[in-house]
Amino acid sequence: MSTPLRFVTLTGSLRKSSYNATIARTLVQLAPQGVDISALGSPGDFPHYNADVQEEGFPAPVLAMAQAIREADGLIIVTPEYNYSVPGVLKNALDWLSRCDPQPLAGKPVLIETASPGAIGGARAQYHLRQILVFFDAMVLNKPEAMIGQVAGKISDGTLTDESTRSFLSAQLAAFADFSRG
Amino acid sequence: MSTPLRFVTLTGSLRKSSYNATIARTLVQLAPQGVDISALGSPGDFPHYNADVQEEGFPAPVLAMAQAIREADGLIIVTPEYNYSVPGVLKNALDWLSRCDPQPLAGKPVLIETASPGAIGGARAQYHLRQILVFFDAMVLNKPEAMIGQVAGKISDGTLTDESTRSFLSAQLAAFADFSRG
Amino acid sequence: MSTPLRFVTLTGSLRKSSYNATIARTLVQLAPQGVDISALGSPGDFPHYNADVQEEGFPAPVLAMAQAIREADGLIIVTPEYNYSVPGVLKNALDWLSRCDPQPLAGKPVLIETASPGAIGGARAQYHLRQILVFFDAMVLNKPEAMIGQVAGKISDGTLTDESTRSFLSAQLAAFADFSRG
Amino acid sequence: MSTPLRFVTLTGSLRKSSYNATIARTLVQLAPQGVDISALGSPGDFPHYNADVQEEGFPAPVLAMAQAIREADGLIIVTPEYNYSVPGVLKNALDWLSRCDPQPLAGKPVLIETASPGAIGGARAQYHLRQILVFFDAMVLNKPEAMIGQVAGKISDGTLTDESTRSFLSAQLAAFADFSRG
Repeated sequence: MSTPLRFVTLTGSLRKSSYNATIARTLVQLAPQGVDISALGSPGDFPHYNADVQEEGFPAPVLAMAQAIREADGLIIVTPEYNYSVPGVLKNALDWLSRCDPQPLAGKPVLIETASPGAIGGARAQYHLRQILVFFDAMVLNKPEAMIGQVAGKISDGTLTDESTRSFLSAQLAAFADFSRG
Repeated sequence: MSTPLRFVTLTGSLRKSSYNATIARTLVQLAPQGVDISALGSPGDFPHYNADVQEEGFPAPVLAMAQAIREADGLIIVTPEYNYSVPGVLKNALDWLSRCDPQPLAGKPVLIETASPGAIGGARAQYHLRQILVFFDAMVLNKPEAMIGQVAGKISDGTLTDESTRSFLSAQLAAFADFSRG
Repeated sequence: MSTPLRFVTLTGSLRKSSYNATIARTLVQLAPQGVDISALGSPGDFPHYNADVQEEGFPAPVLAMAQAIREADGLIIVTPEYNYSVPGVLKNALDWLSRCDPQPLAGKPVLIETASPGAIGGARAQYHLRQILVFFDAMVLNKPEAMIGQVAGKISDGTLTDESTRSFLSAQLAAFADFSRG
Repeated sequence: MSTPLRFVTLTGSLRKSSYNATIARTLVQLAPQGVDISALGSPGDFPHYNADVQEEGFPAPVLAMAQAIREADGLIIVTPEYNYSVPGVLKNALDWLSRCDPQPLAGKPVLIETASPGAIGGARAQYHLRQILVFFDAMVLNKPEAMIGQVAGKISDGTLTDESTRSFLSAQLAAFADFSRG
């Protein structure tokens, strides 16, 4: 029997009916046995990063997210691409997390998933995110990569319903579980 | 005589004594004759981008910055590098601006300057920013590139004092003025 | 009447039935009136870049390509993506060209087109190429961007036959002609 | 006692007195006990990648390098940056290696070192290389990163002599040995 794992998801879109938040929620159903997946708080609860604010003390939502990531076995980032890169709100969360001590992503297994209405599926955001995560010394899964294009047609009633995407993400989660067990 | 130009600066750091805000302020002294430089509002005044909020109407600081950029002859982005990329707060401002109509950076001359305490001088942020600005269809000056390393020692009393950096930025502003005149 | 223009194409694949070479050839049919398009020599004729070889004199194919680019009004790079980046053979050609004096791409209008069998259409190679072209001080068209996915089904009998791709590339060439006229 | 390890080096410059080849050679002296380092063949011995040539059979130097990488415990890439990216000749070697079966870099520990005459030390090439290595599913060490600027003054008589760089690279090799042992 394999060790149980706990993964947490971080989403880069604040929109209520966000495609990416929908996918993050659907992962709970797609997880392999023994893998528990739950959502982190919203990066929308963080203030804009400001070193002067940090001096006075880290905001509570930052501390809470940092601790939740430290306690998890892996982090799953599910995000749209905005303007050929990572959404500002997601990058802002990472900017705060990078200053926490101990830095919560150091050595942490990370999985990246992007979804977008177009054909490219968020690929441009993924490689920016990978460069950022080198700084964090995170352990990012290489393959398989999940770039989910034409996402609007793959979701209905608040769930990812497209069968081939579901089975792809299911296989990716199994690979990430293996990777996280090291 | 050459046409007078008006450039506006956008800074990616909210810290009061920000090195990059200091450099942005110093540009006013370094501008060639006939070139006026002034600061845009703070990207810290924008909320986190959220399409649901946008539906209800663009926030006033977003509309004001978009209009100020449209009226300017060029935009100068002066920013630190955070975690090998663009600060979240700056990217968030761009995420809002990208949805304004007409999009204020389309065809707009843009100059990028980065400063950092280390040797690399923010180079990693610059190329992420350039990729983002392709989406905006902005006209980004190629050369000379300003990556100002070891910035702490180049500033005193709230001004960029290092002579060789001042003269480099002065020459870069002249090149950007030519570029903006087309 | 608009000024006649001469564009030259450079292809990153050496394969005889290369999809990208096929697209480059098809551009001749898609060019707007007054725009002449012809192919540069093969980057496969260049030796691997070596500064010691350069000392002894630039190879003839390098000098010929550099001169042909200087005489052209714009350069069109049509290339596959290899391993998430620019093909080595194309980068090697650029490595040689960058040392020619005068450097042939300085200030030169450049258009990028990529085609690949997968969904992404070569997007990853495009942004690497754009970063490289900053060094060259080339003037790269921002938009529209041509990333041609699933290319195998869009070609037959040595011609790009897919109507929607043909009309897209035709419009892109018209935009590039406008851009090149300045 | 820790397992002995065998690392191989691949250099992206063909110049006889290459700074990067000099550094690669110096690594032999800097390796921790139990770590053996030797040089792979030259990527200059590979033809330009061409799928038609591949059809007829992989060139012997490609097969030899692929096998040497498979047999090694880790790969150390020591390369200059050319035109803000990876040298064409190095990318060409990777383009060939990517088609070998089994692909020799899959799951292989990889260390990247870049050296350049300027201040940036090859950083731009490193992140392009990291994106490329995602495709290969290689395991690239995150930190510490070796970007060696102003390299000309750090080498004499064909050896890396700068003490602080030597001790940095020595520590990096120790970290890479730990990383490779998993």
